Amino acid sequence: DVARVDHHRALRQDQVEAVYGPGKTPEQCVLVVGELLSVPADGPVLLTRVDDAQVAAVLDAHPGGEVVAGTVVWRRASERAERVVVVTAGTADLPVADECAAVLDALGFRPRRITDAGVAGIHRILAEVDELLAADAVVVVAGMEGALASVVGGIAACPVVAVPTSVGYGAGLEGVTALLGMLASCAAGITVVGIDNGFGAAMAVARALPR
Amino acid sequence: DVARVDHHRALRQDQVEAVYGPGKTPEQCVLVVGELLSVPADGPVLLTRVDDAQVAAVLDAHPGGEVVAGTVVWRRASERAERVVVVTAGTADLPVADECAAVLDALGFRPRRITDAGVAGIHRILAEVDELLAADAVVVVAGMEGALASVVGGIAACPVVAVPTSVGYGAGLEGVTALLGMLASCAAGITVVGIDNGFGAAMAVARALPR
Amino acid sequence: DVARVDHHRALRQDQVEAVYGPGKTPEQCVLVVGELLSVPADGPVLLTRVDDAQVAAVLDAHPGGEVVAGTVVWRRASERAERVVVVTAGTADLPVADECAAVLDALGFRPRRITDAGVAGIHRILAEVDELLAADAVVVVAGMEGALASVVGGIAACPVVAVPTSVGYGAGLEGVTALLGMLASCAAGITVVGIDNGFGAAMAVARALPR
Amino acid sequence: DVARVDHHRALRQDQVEAVYGPGKTPEQCVLVVGELLSVPADGPVLLTRVDDAQVAAVLDAHPGGEVVAGTVVWRRASERAERVVVVTAGTADLPVADECAAVLDALGFRPRRITDAGVAGIHRILAEVDELLAADAVVVVAGMEGALASVVGGIAACPVVAVPTSVGYGAGLEGVTALLGMLASCAAGITVVGIDNGFGAAMAVARALPR
Amino acid sequence: DVARVDHHRALRQDQVEAVYGPGKTPEQCVLVVGELLSVPADGPVLLTRVDDAQVAAVLDAHPGGEVVAGTVVWRRASERAERVVVVTAGTADLPVADECAAVLDALGFRPRRITDAGVAGIHRILAEVDELLAADAVVVVAGMEGALASVVGGIAACPVVAVPTSVGYGAGLEGVTALLGMLASCAAGITVVGIDNGFGAAMAVARALPR
Amino acid sequence: DVARVDHHRALRQDQVEAVYGPGKTPEQCVLVVGELLSVPADGPVLLTRVDDAQVAAVLDAHPGGEVVAGTVVWRRASERAERVVVVTAGTADLPVADECAAVLDALGFRPRRITDAGVAGIHRILAEVDELLAADAVVVVAGMEGALASVVGGIAACPVVAVPTSVGYGAGLEGVTALLGMLASCAAGITVVGIDNGFGAAMAVARALPR
Amino acid sequence: DVARVDHHRALRQDQVEAVYGPGKTPEQCVLVVGELLSVPADGPVLLTRVDDAQVAAVLDAHPGGEVVAGTVVWRRASERAERVVVVTAGTADLPVADECAAVLDALGFRPRRITDAGVAGIHRILAEVDELLAADAVVVVAGMEGALASVVGGIAACPVVAVPTSVGYGAGLEGVTALLGMLASCAAGITVVGIDNGFGAAMAVARALPR
Amino acid sequence: DVARVDHHRALRQDQVEAVYGPGKTPEQCVLVVGELLSVPADGPVLLTRVDDAQVAAVLDAHPGGEVVAGTVVWRRASERAERVVVVTAGTADLPVADECAAVLDALGFRPRRITDAGVAGIHRILAEVDELLAADAVVVVAGMEGALASVVGGIAACPVVAVPTSVGYGAGLEGVTALLGMLASCAAGITVVGIDNGFGAAMAVARALPR
Ligand SMILES: Nc1ncnc2c1ncn2[C@@H]1O[C@H](COP(=O)(O)O)[C@@H](O)[C@H]1O
Ligand SMILES: Nc1ncnc2c1ncn2[C@@H]1O[C@H](COP(=O)(O)O)[C@@H](O)[C@H]1O
Ligand SMILES: Nc1ncnc2c1ncn2[C@@H]1O[C@H](COP(=O)(O)O)[C@@H](O)[C@H]1O
Ligand SMILES: Nc1ncnc2c1ncn2[C@@H]1O[C@H](COP(=O)(O)O)[C@@H](O)[C@H]1O
Ligand SMILES: [Mg+2]
Ligand SMILES: [Mg+2]
Ligand SMILES: [Mg+2]
Ligand SMILES: [Mg+2]
Ligand SMILES: [Mg+2]
Ligand SMILES: [Mg+2]
Ligand SMILES: [Mg+2]
Ligand SMILES: [Mg+2]
Repeated sequence: DVARVDHHRALRQDQVEAVYGPGKTPEQCVLVVGELLSVPADGPVLLTRVDDAQVAAVLDAHPGGEVVAGTVVWRRASERAERVVVVTAGTADLPVADECAAVLDALGFRPRRITDAGVAGIHRILAEVDELLAADAVVVVAGMEGALASVVGGIAACPVVAVPTSVGYGAGLEGVTALLGMLASCAAGITVVGIDNGFGAAMAVARALPR
Repeated sequence: DVARVDHHRALRQDQVEAVYGPGKTPEQCVLVVGELLSVPADGPVLLTRVDDAQVAAVLDAHPGGEVVAGTVVWRRASERAERVVVVTAGTADLPVADECAAVLDALGFRPRRITDAGVAGIHRILAEVDELLAADAVVVVAGMEGALASVVGGIAACPVVAVPTSVGYGAGLEGVTALLGMLASCAAGITVVGIDNGFGAAMAVARALPR
Repeated sequence: DVARVDHHRALRQDQVEAVYGPGKTPEQCVLVVGELLSVPADGPVLLTRVDDAQVAAVLDAHPGGEVVAGTVVWRRASERAERVVVVTAGTADLPVADECAAVLDALGFRPRRITDAGVAGIHRILAEVDELLAADAVVVVAGMEGALASVVGGIAACPVVAVPTSVGYGAGLEGVTALLGMLASCAAGITVVGIDNGFGAAMAVARALPR
Repeated sequence: DVARVDHHRALRQDQVEAVYGPGKTPEQCVLVVGELLSVPADGPVLLTRVDDAQVAAVLDAHPGGEVVAGTVVWRRASERAERVVVVTAGTADLPVADECAAVLDALGFRPRRITDAGVAGIHRILAEVDELLAADAVVVVAGMEGALASVVGGIAACPVVAVPTSVGYGAGLEGVTALLGMLASCAAGITVVGIDNGFGAAMAVARALPR
Repeated sequence: DVARVDHHRALRQDQVEAVYGPGKTPEQCVLVVGELLSVPADGPVLLTRVDDAQVAAVLDAHPGGEVVAGTVVWRRASERAERVVVVTAGTADLPVADECAAVLDALGFRPRRITDAGVAGIHRILAEVDELLAADAVVVVAGMEGALASVVGGIAACPVVAVPTSVGYGAGLEGVTALLGMLASCAAGITVVGIDNGFGAAMAVARALPR
Repeated sequence: DVARVDHHRALRQDQVEAVYGPGKTPEQCVLVVGELLSVPADGPVLLTRVDDAQVAAVLDAHPGGEVVAGTVVWRRASERAERVVVVTAGTADLPVADECAAVLDALGFRPRRITDAGVAGIHRILAEVDELLAADAVVVVAGMEGALASVVGGIAACPVVAVPTSVGYGAGLEGVTALLGMLASCAAGITVVGIDNGFGAAMAVARALPR
Repeated sequence: DVARVDHHRALRQDQVEAVYGPGKTPEQCVLVVGELLSVPADGPVLLTRVDDAQVAAVLDAHPGGEVVAGTVVWRRASERAERVVVVTAGTADLPVADECAAVLDALGFRPRRITDAGVAGIHRILAEVDELLAADAVVVVAGMEGALASVVGGIAACPVVAVPTSVGYGAGLEGVTALLGMLASCAAGITVVGIDNGFGAAMAVARALPR
Repeated sequence: DVARVDHHRALRQDQVEAVYGPGKTPEQCVLVVGELLSVPADGPVLLTRVDDAQVAAVLDAHPGGEVVAGTVVWRRASERAERVVVVTAGTADLPVADECAAVLDALGFRPRRITDAGVAGIHRILAEVDELLAADAVVVVAGMEGALASVVGGIAACPVVAVPTSVGYGAGLEGVTALLGMLASCAAGITVVGIDNGFGAAMAVARALPR
């Protein structure tokens, strides 16, 4: 019965609660965040992809939020021991990786960052083999052809979550090329989230590394 | 240096080694499998999506293989304690789920199966809430609109890997509809593998549940 | 002969007449609306998706119009008894649902609204089962993966019209993902209108519930 | 609670139960059909898109089924008074329309058929205006450009369900062209089901014309 | 040899010469138009899809141009006797039809216009059957599902050139739906030009109706 | 009124009547062809894309038909004076061009053929400039990139109808590449029919060259 | 003048002449090959993608041809000194690479082969760095995500021609995924030919390495 | 070992180093360019697709850069003897061709330009046959249907690199039509880079013409 669902909610009380900002008025943001903060639990609350008006309104109504990479975080979790790595191929992938890192941080992970590791200069990711082998989870953020996910997936043994980005022009097809490449990857067992979905990748890491 | 890569191979010696059958002659299968079995390690070796001629040849050359759901398995791993659940929406998704289950089994997982749980009869998956809450990892195999992944992802807190299938006709677009739906899912943190890639989903579970 | 067509017009004199605003000058709007209001009949007249200049012009020329959700309505129909429900998955689907509700209202239906019922929190739509069972028609407005239509279609026995929305980013493909998912739905007998076409869904309800 | 769902099942006991044949073994068909026939209710039971082996097995196990247009029907409903019309554009659309008509017939509707009414010879559908004006529901089955749905939708005031078919070659794109055309139709309030889904259209009619 | 090509140029000296404005600086427009006007011939010269700066520059440099529907015309041809009809489905198709009509006019045709003849109100195009039967060529400009081309093509016996427009939203796919529908049309012998290509349609009429 | 449509039929009595063979039983072919031959008129009657069983049946029932390129022709029209040219790029385009030529022949045109004129050997089409300049209509049949239509359209001043073919592999996308290329052609006034639609191109020529 | 084109033919007399087999009758093959062999020049003549009947006919009519990888070669060129490397990612890419190697061989190149070098095991291609650095041209043949081209392009300084293959299933989209990935590659200056076009890649190498 | 990769870097020290401007802050540009200029080598350094703020910042920090066609060049190479030709179809292709020419120039090539050579006026490219025959490499930049690449590829014997551009509207599909056409080209051995990727084409020329 539905009680089971309620029970289930209880089990997950310490989980993150996230609100997607775009399309909501500042007032709606204040309301929804308020509701989530009022629940007697201690999990983090997030408002993502905010604009300036939304930030102003929610910080006024609900002090204590910290703003990182377009994400407002309340009740940031204390540090956890697992090693999470966020890898990016190029400069243009950084905003998506930053959102991912901000959400990971809110969840208690303090992700290490490997940047500018595109496969056309393969020595760059090879220099990070030790880091990848030691990781408990890796997020690979890459646009264009998305090949970095295959290379990383072939090195790391842990969960590898690939995030295609809409970076690039022409044949990158706004992320579809990277998405398809990651899905068709010959590296067994890597998984994929939606285009530019840094948030989703962070949440996938949280699922893979339960407390 | 590349020694690091070799070192890395050592670290992963107990991993599964899988050969993709289609497009290989029986002789090629015998050769590659033989090479993998000759390595002094004890991880399982798999030959997937085999046809009859391939099976005959490899079992003759390398006795001891077991055939399940189109997969030949040597050195099947001993049972592990984690609870893995494989959920399917309809009858037509079963072959993909069976491949996934066979690979999981080779890896030591003894997956539980939930079948015929399409969301158009929502009580069917609701009857399995306890099973989903107790799981350490869930694989959702679904074609058509792929909505089952969103519902399961909203219930289970553990890693949820979604496998779109090419089942169905017309607007199912041979799995593309399910794939897109799973990627665009509103359930945070579920991840997706390629169309019909039951093997990949099993390997993703193995990454998420290291020994 | 074509007289049959004229006869047919007579039969439908009490129907809604709707003008699509975008791409028309305020003057064109005034003209077309004037023509429709001049016909000796009492059905409602609508001007949809208006901008400010169009509203100003038509209300000046044709007083008595009411503006709701970007729709100007003249000769709003008196209340009807049938129960129509408009369900939305997320905040971002509201504008499309609002247009749908405004047109339904003009037609005499006073639709009930169920909001924020996305399937990733399945208890939300389950809490509305009685409402859905009692409905004479349901409109489901959803973007992203559009799975809500399948779940609602499996509960309600009445006509269910699904409206995919262009809400979301990346793999939502501006509504195409939701559209495909709704068309491929495993819930038998649900039907679909074009992306963001809240107006069309309201008109489909009117066809299904003749006076 | 889920009891509500069960209650809901009770409410719908007289509904059709349909099993999709393709991909099921004859044994699976016998089993599922048997289960559905064993429920103490009097609604029709259907097995659709059957092949010869499936027909032989199910008729042997469950005598009394009638086979029409690839559909096996048990407990065919008694005749209902509503007028349902199934219109087709060309010869090649007939199989889809036949499946639709067979399902409608199982539900108690005795659909009238209008055939060869493609819009390139517009006098053909104009000759049927009286029939369309008198209808309680119309199903339009058309491939290629699918324009027939727009014309019929502009004439009939009742529910119009459009079924795109995969008929034709080249630019018909296996039904996608007709599907898009029907969704983008300028005839307000027509709705669409998936490509070749004659079954779904019949079920949509059943929703629109409750007993 | 290439002399044959030159000879060919001679044969075509009275043809229209057209310059596509977008992407050219006003200076480039002045130059190219000047070159074309300097050729000792009497065919019309056109500059299409101009912006204000381009218009100002070319009229200043080359007086005598007339501006209609975003097209500047020099040496407009004297009136010809053939009957050309330009049909549009909705208000939003007018800009494309206007460009087509402006080019036809420059070529000496004085096209008749039939507007607001979308097929959802089939009596509207039926009222113009005599006009269509008397035509020497018809251009059909339509967006959304583009069905008007099939209906007109089934009535008129002369060349029918269909122009899909990018009008509409959602499932219209910026003209692709209309394009596909026109190509897949069941009306034999109608032909199609690119999306929004009113200019191309006018040129096709000129080819079909040589002096 | 609809009488106008009938009148219109009278006007077009000498037109070709064509039946599309695929998907029709031999009996249906016999019936439809018989009906068309029974009309007291003298226009040609065609049955296209026939298989052997259909040919046997219709020639038995309706003697006097001639079979060319998969098309059965009754009442072939007497020769006309206009020069029609059918150009092909490669060997693989021949079947589509043959169907086109057969239909043209049935209509009284005795088309000239230019073959193997792909643009990668541009001297091949240049050798035919005189033929193209003298033509009253040209049909260009080409697969792969379809560039031949642009080159021919730049040489010939008469109507040029382009037929994309599904010839080729990989990036030819079964005719879509050629189709798009022809629609986007920089040669003004060329028009396009559906992929592989040689019949449609012949009918377009008939429209452009009325008796 | 066209003489220049003829002159040009003279300049290229020593080039390969290739006939594409599929869609040609054995007789057509004999004829075209005969014509090419009769030209007083010494360049190789190729008939590609042949079936058994074609092989029998052409070898009978034109003795001296050698058959390799579905290609018949006459007048194979003597060995050249340049180092050309053909790299493949997986077993399934071999047929395309074999065609490429056969054409290269006919042209006088004796290509070295690197196989099974997919990027998910990055040490495999790293073991070949010296070979890649010493190459005068590299062809990379890869399906699935096509990432190998980016890695090779980042190592080798010479011309790198990428050939996407239709190998794989699901999200590989029959080569489109690899094609897009190669086009969007972050390795500067690599170029791409059509899906499965091993022949084209060999010809591109011939252009890059003139005698 | 990875030392081989380092060795490889040494071999390529005189190569161009290019930074892609879009998405980088002026500060990031200054930093990366500075790093590249600090390497004790004499190859050119490029910053491409710059905006005004980026130009101001980098020229201030690193004097001596020259700005051409949106590209800043430091350490421009001295002139080389090879003949490289850049051909464009229309005015709108010029920006992409200009970027290509600027990069070629930085590399020491002084490319010749052929402009306005679209195939609809085939005499225009024929007038340049001598230039094409004398070339060591040709870049063809074309939008719309991209046919120019096939014609040029059939004339020139040297490497031909095709660049599809996103020029045009409607059926040009923002470069996809030209891209597909170039890939499917019947001219053997031409290769393709991504849409609008003038930079990539120049780099491909550099690979084909090593010092
Ligand atoms: N059934 C399967 N589905 C998807 N990928 C597979 C499957 N079986 C094996 N693979 C992958 O394919 C690779 C082997 O390809 P190959 O070297 O051609 O045998 C392995 O590394 C696996 O990652
Ligand atoms: N011919 C058909 N076309 C489309 N859907 C069908 C058809 N027959 C049955 N179905 C649907 O498929 C579901 C049964 O699927 P299954 O459980 O696999 O038999 C039913 O709930 C129906 O909604
Ligand atoms: N080979 C063909 N290719 C395309 N359309 C055809 C062909 N043959 C006949 N048609 C069209 O198909 C229509 C006949 O369809 P049907 O009524 O099914 O025989 C005719 O009106 C023709 O316009
Ligand atoms: N195996 C192949 N793959 C791709 N293109 C080929 C192949 N063999 C020949 N061709 C091309 O096809 C053209 C010959 O086509 P055809 O005239 O039909 O024989 C030649 O000019 C080659 O460029
Ligand atoms: Mg870099
Ligand atoms: Mg079922
Ligand atoms: Mg929510
Ligand atoms: Mg017919
Ligand atoms: Mg209107
Ligand atoms: Mg040839
Ligand atoms: Mg392998
Ligand atoms: Mg020009």
